[in-house]
Amino acid sequence: MTEPTAPSAAVVIGTGLVGASIGCALTAGGTTVHLRDQKMSHALVAAELGAGTVDPPAPAEVSLVVAAVPPRALPQVIAQALESYRHATVTDVGSVKAGVLAALWDSGLDLDRYVGSHPMAGSQHSGPMTARADLFRDRTWVITPHRRSAATSVAAVAAMVQACGARQVVMDVDDHDAAVARVSHLPHLMSVLMASHLTGVPSEHLLLAGQGLRDVTRIAGSDPELWVQILGANSAAVLSELRAVQDQLDQVIKAVESPETGQLLAQLTRGVEGIRRIPGKHGSAQVAYTRVVVEIPDAPGALGRLFALVGEAGVNVEDISIEHDQARQVGYLSLSVAPEQAPGLTSAMIGHGWSVQA
Amino acid sequence: MTEPTAPSAAVVIGTGLVGASIGCALTAGGTTVHLRDQKMSHALVAAELGAGTVDPPAPAEVSLVVAAVPPRALPQVIAQALESYRHATVTDVGSVKAGVLAALWDSGLDLDRYVGSHPMAGSQHSGPMTARADLFRDRTWVITPHRRSAATSVAAVAAMVQACGARQVVMDVDDHDAAVARVSHLPHLMSVLMASHLTGVPSEHLLLAGQGLRDVTRIAGSDPELWVQILGANSAAVLSELRAVQDQLDQVIKAVESPETGQLLAQLTRGVEGIRRIPGKHGSAQVAYTRVVVEIPDAPGALGRLFALVGEAGVNVEDISIEHDQARQVGYLSLSVAPEQAPGLTSAMIGHGWSVQA
Repeated sequence: MTEPTAPSAAVVIGTGLVGASIGCALTAGGTTVHLRDQKMSHALVAAELGAGTVDPPAPAEVSLVVAAVPPRALPQVIAQALESYRHATVTDVGSVKAGVLAALWDSGLDLDRYVGSHPMAGSQHSGPMTARADLFRDRTWVITPHRRSAATSVAAVAAMVQACGARQVVMDVDDHDAAVARVSHLPHLMSVLMASHLTGVPSEHLLLAGQGLRDVTRIAGSDPELWVQILGANSAAVLSELRAVQDQLDQVIKAVESPETGQLLAQLTRGVEGIRRIPGKHGSAQVAYTRVVVEIPDAPGALGRLFALVGEAGVNVEDISIEHDQARQVGYLSLSVAPEQAPGLTSAMIGHGWSVQA
Repeated sequence: MTEPTAPSAAVVIGTGLVGASIGCALTAGGTTVHLRDQKMSHALVAAELGAGTVDPPAPAEVSLVVAAVPPRALPQVIAQALESYRHATVTDVGSVKAGVLAALWDSGLDLDRYVGSHPMAGSQHSGPMTARADLFRDRTWVITPHRRSAATSVAAVAAMVQACGARQVVMDVDDHDAAVARVSHLPHLMSVLMASHLTGVPSEHLLLAGQGLRDVTRIAGSDPELWVQILGANSAAVLSELRAVQDQLDQVIKAVESPETGQLLAQLTRGVEGIRRIPGKHGSAQVAYTRVVVEIPDAPGALGRLFALVGEAGVNVEDISIEHDQARQVGYLSLSVAPEQAPGLTSAMIGHGWSVQA
């Protein structure tokens, strides 16, 4: 198989944040991108931001069409694109895949040139103003071929994903929808549940709100109209997750009723375990660091000297913690560094008189 | 009433993040801070970071004692401090107040020199390594006097809050505990509920995790042992919130079962309303901006020139959005700016030939 190449001419339908950003990335890669939007002003702004041109394309020259419109409009926009652009692969960036595909099957169209996809990036800002070519860099972008998708069309979508700098993951449509129910739609509803609870909290109590509450509720600020469409399109999968959470909430309530029985500790510990399962920001495995442990001396300015030494050695400290030996009443500073930097740092410290643990 | 003044000598018991940061702020304000910790290594590191000295104080000279130890240890540490430092106001920084106060009443001690408090800052990092004098700057710090608290002691705690750069809020103990159940303990459990659900999600699905999931689950990564103590100390208030959420979750499930009936939209909209009730980051009222609206021209480079003009005018744009007139097929760029900057910006734009909406 040859390396996928970016298309020479593409059409992006819908110039919100995601569509305009795809336009920017494809344009930067040398593709001529034609922008279309029901709101001409959005297309004009996207064009200004480098996403492409508002000039109409020659349909026969278009090899890729990206439908970046709200979920409800997708089946019709995709069907029209398949008919208007006879040589083009058509993809979409909708966040739920099965319903759109079912609607397209029902239309009786030949779907070999259609391959769904879903970039895991975006934000609650829906307009093109914040569009940028690197929106998808190092993000996951799911490609969801169906049983009739042509291999060349799958390759064309893969080329677009690559041109956007994203990491492709190929998934079955139903598997994709189950995954987003779990990692996107359920978290959204949990955030909404917490945020809507605040409507009944006295203002004075909200003065005590900290970063934790803001983090938990941030995504609940997204456009309700859009989310009705997303959740409605994936309601079966979402309901299954919600019912599991309902059972789990019953358990949490029982645990808080008897906080000292160990059940509450088990629930909280399970939360920490769940977080650990989320891959690193770029989907990479967690890097294992080596810990260099030195005894903390009881001498003014000692830590300052230690960090100066670390800086001189050109070592990047990823994490710092203190370990304490209660029996000996001494403490140790544990510096987490890249494995290849540990031996050099250890020698430098010993050379400067530090007591490094073996 | 005279302006509260920072104490000349203080004792901080417990040199984790919060205790060490209070030490840093008081030291920076000219107070001699004596640090005490069961783990001498933590006290030594805190001293290195500028939080104070590990030298023992002369008890008679101490005018303020801050107990910054885990919740379970608070009653005993506070009681001992009241006995050891006969001229000092004693406060604590525990996140739940009623249980500690009840335990102190039971001890039969004279509590006029005790005033509880609770700074709304900190993080899941529990050691002193990340301590800093400005941890509490512009954060809310609740002071919870009881019926026997001496006015001079309340003033002493207010002076400490001021020395730390925080904004004081005075609340009744029970009111405080209800407030933190709502804005801190419930969000924590919602985050845990979502995070623990991830333990059952296939790894491949977690590749699709985005920033939303990370935000919702972040605080679930906090120390489970500490949170068993916090939730256990406030279980009645927390249970009342959890049961309300349980009812609300039933409603959300019904809404997702019939997404098109308007119930789901109502739930999602309530979430947005809830977020809007959270005060701005510094607890200030939301600033009202004035919008300057210009027609978007269909000319290459026009927006670039517009933003250059905005920059030259020295105007700070707080928000940008696009408004579209579907009938006329024209768009408008709406720039939100400080009210006092709007007239100048408008004149400059008109002067440069832009069409500005009245």
